[in-house]
Amino acid sequence: MRIAIIGFGVVGQGLVEIMRDKGEILRQQDGLDIQIVAVCDTVKGSVYHPQGLDAKLLLQAIQSTGSLDSYPESAGLVRGRDSVSTIRDTDADVIVEATWTNLETGEPAITHIRTAFHAGKHVVTSNKGPVALAYKELKSLADAGGLLWGIEGTVMSGTPALRLGTTALAGCTIQAVRGILNGTTNFILTRMEDGATYTEALAEAQRLGYAEADPTADVEGYDALGKLLILAAVVFDHPITAHQVSRQGITHLTPQDIQHARAQGKRWKLIAELQRTDDGVQARVAPQMIDLAHPLAGVSGATNAITYVTDLLGEVTLVGPGAGRRETGFALLSDLLEIHRISA
Amino acid sequence: MRIAIIGFGVVGQGLVEIMRDKGEILRQQDGLDIQIVAVCDTVKGSVYHPQGLDAKLLLQAIQSTGSLDSYPESAGLVRGRDSVSTIRDTDADVIVEATWTNLETGEPAITHIRTAFHAGKHVVTSNKGPVALAYKELKSLADAGGLLWGIEGTVMSGTPALRLGTTALAGCTIQAVRGILNGTTNFILTRMEDGATYTEALAEAQRLGYAEADPTADVEGYDALGKLLILAAVVFDHPITAHQVSRQGITHLTPQDIQHARAQGKRWKLIAELQRTDDGVQARVAPQMIDLAHPLAGVSGATNAITYVTDLLGEVTLVGPGAGRRETGFALLSDLLEIHRISA
Repeated sequence: MRIAIIGFGVVGQGLVEIMRDKGEILRQQDGLDIQIVAVCDTVKGSVYHPQGLDAKLLLQAIQSTGSLDSYPESAGLVRGRDSVSTIRDTDADVIVEATWTNLETGEPAITHIRTAFHAGKHVVTSNKGPVALAYKELKSLADAGGLLWGIEGTVMSGTPALRLGTTALAGCTIQAVRGILNGTTNFILTRMEDGATYTEALAEAQRLGYAEADPTADVEGYDALGKLLILAAVVFDHPITAHQVSRQGITHLTPQDIQHARAQGKRWKLIAELQRTDDGVQARVAPQMIDLAHPLAGVSGATNAITYVTDLLGEVTLVGPGAGRRETGFALLSDLLEIHRISA
Repeated sequence: MRIAIIGFGVVGQGLVEIMRDKGEILRQQDGLDIQIVAVCDTVKGSVYHPQGLDAKLLLQAIQSTGSLDSYPESAGLVRGRDSVSTIRDTDADVIVEATWTNLETGEPAITHIRTAFHAGKHVVTSNKGPVALAYKELKSLADAGGLLWGIEGTVMSGTPALRLGTTALAGCTIQAVRGILNGTTNFILTRMEDGATYTEALAEAQRLGYAEADPTADVEGYDALGKLLILAAVVFDHPITAHQVSRQGITHLTPQDIQHARAQGKRWKLIAELQRTDDGVQARVAPQMIDLAHPLAGVSGATNAITYVTDLLGEVTLVGPGAGRRETGFALLSDLLEIHRISA
């Protein structure tokens, strides 16, 4: 399997680290031999070699100089291709789309993925934008070309939230989906339970790297909303747009609210929720007081969780990491393994 | 897909109920058209029709008379075939093995499954015995014949515990597995937390049908032990025998023990646990005090849960039902869907 990686930030590097550390195990245990033929990043540079690049040297180049320009020279190495040319004109079988997430336009990822499918190449991505905003178009394009599109990492990083809903629970009717889909806000709420104010908890989350300097996307529920768009399209086969989702963040919650919940044997969680209705899907993101006996109540810190409410099994809940370099790198790997299984 | 059902107790009937209620949806949504050609039960009788049997009439016969002998007569209907002949001499593509679990010998299920593979037929089963005791032999037999063996229902009924460990987490190294794999004991422990004594809680579990008249298999940890044998063979590819598992039940736990745990912010759970070691696998079933912050601590009542401890994702926990008529019926259906996907 020959892959080209578009975007060499945390996620792309996470995947290459896994391949450096586990390439041999993957070959032996899973029969999957991955060759990285190209890595292209608009800022960090671009390298392509039809005979393959070395995972260790790619990481060394980035870690020592921050740029792929320091990747060692060799006969046949091509530098400077842009992303579209890397996708279209190299001999990769699978494109790993790992550029930044844009929940307004989905670009440049949508263009990258469209280009890949038009060029007859499989795609794996952990980028929420294209799945949240253009699932139907891109999935149809993939299907028409007999191509696969791996998107497991778009909801809970490597925790297989989508595979659970689409494959493992196939045959069940899923009536609702409820989840803790944002680790930053769950960390803040957990710290507030321990006695911190919202401001203190946010500052700690920022110190630990869980929250951005501008925390709006997390604390106002936009990140969780993006994941609901993905779940609506992928699990319910019913795409919706952001303005169809009622959204409330956690910024208004006070220590008094936390106490009030505790007194009732409950706990605040930022819940992202989809419900099947007679004429479609109802979606909302809002803090909810969850009974301590419910599996979602026990999910603490930056951990994520998702509950599927089904006709045949009742509730099934999956708990695991929702972010992280290795975790999201693994999501991409698990999609590559799936492509390997299906096309083998 | 033509199936023969061997054993028509709760689980077999659960599958037929799902097919009666959701057959049309399965045809439309999943492209899976299941025809029941034979049902054979040593006590309840045996019917076979090459053109297929009617799900509704099968259930009516059992519910009204307790016997398949009252299934309506029709041209071409064959009665009275035994299980081996039903497996070998009918034109079913897939054998559903749903006889009683025997964790001593695995019979008659092992013979049924061996016969099916020798006859070139796929098998799905929720029967723990053959997987706990003869996984390697039967899996080799299936592989040699290019046949599939669905076993999802053997650990947590329809909750996809095995698919999570074997497929969805493929690429991760699983270092340990920990689970609440017996609903009866978890129900008893939950009621003891609410203030009941062990004896009161057991009596309630028996009243509700969660516990047998002789509760030994559950409360002494034998059922959970059987599931560890399955996980060792299937997830760790390292079969072990019952005497390699250290086993302790919950019968000695007192209200004082429960209080003692609570005072430390913990909760007793009967934990079944596998750990990779340098020279194999270490396995034990024992009550453990679990920290309230851990996802397994929040699993209450008859619900089951399993935690995989992995290198790339840390802990991933799946929570869902671990028993039940529809739930186990769904496990068989999900295996049939998998066979349909793979052989399509």
